[in-house]
Amino acid sequence: MKITAVGTVAFDAIETPFGKTDKILGGAATYIGLSASVLDVDVELVSVVGGDFPKKYIELLSGKNIGIEGIEVIPDGKTFFWSGKYHNDMNSRDTLVTELNVLEGFNPKLPINAQNSEILLLGNLHPGVQLSVIEQVKDAKLVVLDTMNFWMDQTWDLLLKTIKKTNVLSINDSEARQLSGEYSLVKAAKKIHEMGPKYVIIKKGEHGALLFGEGEVFVAPALPLEDVFDPTGAGDSFVGGFVAYLAKEKDLSFNAMRNAVIVGSALASFSVEKFGTERIQEITTSDLNKRLKEFKQLTTFDIKL
Amino acid sequence: MKITAVGTVAFDAIETPFGKTDKILGGAATYIGLSASVLDVDVELVSVVGGDFPKKYIELLSGKNIGIEGIEVIPDGKTFFWSGKYHNDMNSRDTLVTELNVLEGFNPKLPINAQNSEILLLGNLHPGVQLSVIEQVKDAKLVVLDTMNFWMDQTWDLLLKTIKKTNVLSINDSEARQLSGEYSLVKAAKKIHEMGPKYVIIKKGEHGALLFGEGEVFVAPALPLEDVFDPTGAGDSFVGGFVAYLAKEKDLSFNAMRNAVIVGSALASFSVEKFGTERIQEITTSDLNKRLKEFKQLTTFDIKL
Repeated sequence: MKITAVGTVAFDAIETPFGKTDKILGGAATYIGLSASVLDVDVELVSVVGGDFPKKYIELLSGKNIGIEGIEVIPDGKTFFWSGKYHNDMNSRDTLVTELNVLEGFNPKLPINAQNSEILLLGNLHPGVQLSVIEQVKDAKLVVLDTMNFWMDQTWDLLLKTIKKTNVLSINDSEARQLSGEYSLVKAAKKIHEMGPKYVIIKKGEHGALLFGEGEVFVAPALPLEDVFDPTGAGDSFVGGFVAYLAKEKDLSFNAMRNAVIVGSALASFSVEKFGTERIQEITTSDLNKRLKEFKQLTTFDIKL
Repeated sequence: MKITAVGTVAFDAIETPFGKTDKILGGAATYIGLSASVLDVDVELVSVVGGDFPKKYIELLSGKNIGIEGIEVIPDGKTFFWSGKYHNDMNSRDTLVTELNVLEGFNPKLPINAQNSEILLLGNLHPGVQLSVIEQVKDAKLVVLDTMNFWMDQTWDLLLKTIKKTNVLSINDSEARQLSGEYSLVKAAKKIHEMGPKYVIIKKGEHGALLFGEGEVFVAPALPLEDVFDPTGAGDSFVGGFVAYLAKEKDLSFNAMRNAVIVGSALASFSVEKFGTERIQEITTSDLNKRLKEFKQLTTFDIKL
């Protein structure tokens, strides 16, 4: 199955207790593409950058067989820039700078090649843009939506309209609570089901992820790590790996999604090991397979009572 | 294998967003005994109560084949009383009342029957009392210690002396961080290994538990629940189930401990469904087996890459 993924391709400047970067390659679609490419699947990115965006970054993506035809370049525009600083616990962060630049008024026109995908992944972006992409990918069998609290605060009605048209919603625990008004994540998932999505993924960072759907629940662990160098892009790497597994297996069942959540968690666990996209760029299929064995080892038990 | 478990047998008064109780049966040893009794193992409690402690509570315990010979009764003393109020998130609580009463100056003299156990479980209590019990159970093959931040604040040196003599330490995540001075739980477990215990269990409430030992890690989920009515005693029910599984299987290996952590998690998931010990009293082996199947279902995945 082919994947179309919309999201930001951007510059990030990141500060964590381990160090600080200048403007480096970032953005949801970038992490999604790099993560999906580890599974060697057909993924088309839809995004927009400015004339300041280095050619080498575009070549880096296309060199990994990531479809870049849908990345619009606005020569006299500037690329989206985000800067953030993580606190010592790595679970909370302050946004220092957000320059929307070319993202302002982004109105994607998808190339034919990106319109006929079976899987549509809507990375974190303005829900209006996400909605426009849903309308252009008419034959999608699965629409996966990633969003964040910012859009709940700013564009509530439009976000709900977008959520209604999606099959899988992927958000973090505090966002699930905000969206549903429920503290219990089980109740939150139920309310979100009623908003449209048949499946709900709740990401809990170092505590793993929950997948709800078809009256079942699956709990995936996070890999216990000595250090998290940079959490930026972990959620995007997760969801990129999630859709890539489904696309590779051509299977959209709940049981396939169990495995897909583990693949996403494994790719997210790599992503945080170095700054920015550095680590996820390096990962091979063999690295991924080794880590999947670690996840198996991590969760294996065998009770006979 | 036989288990000796030392801890409080007490009165609790509990307030949660779901309601409020008068003085009801509580205490670490009570939860441990009730939880272990679900697996029908030989468990001897060591504790102290006052003349105000109702006979029916003692009969409740002995009626479940829990050994009560080691529960000292001080006729003119008053039973330990704790009262607490949980906040809306159920993860934090305020202690309203702590009346040590007969616990003050508790100096357990173990009956012979409690001295020759293979498994010794030191429930949350003054580390000096825990140390005295270690010295009386000379042939213990496994010493499991549960403690809390209160003893880190009050009796640091004595606690470290006790920890040095234990094989398994069971604490929650914030306590692991306080004890080790490390934020990363992987690093915290390493530092705690160096303090003595070969195995470290880190309890994370609704996020499950981690087991570290022999260079391996096991991650157990918590059962996702719609409502947590009362978290009191969840950690004690957990560790009671943990040692009960090992005793029943007569197996103290890391792989047995994986299963034991799941059994403990299952029993803890029952414990929080009603106030106090009400729910854990009702649980049968058949209930437990059903829930263990739910835990299997919750964590099963099968990736072929």
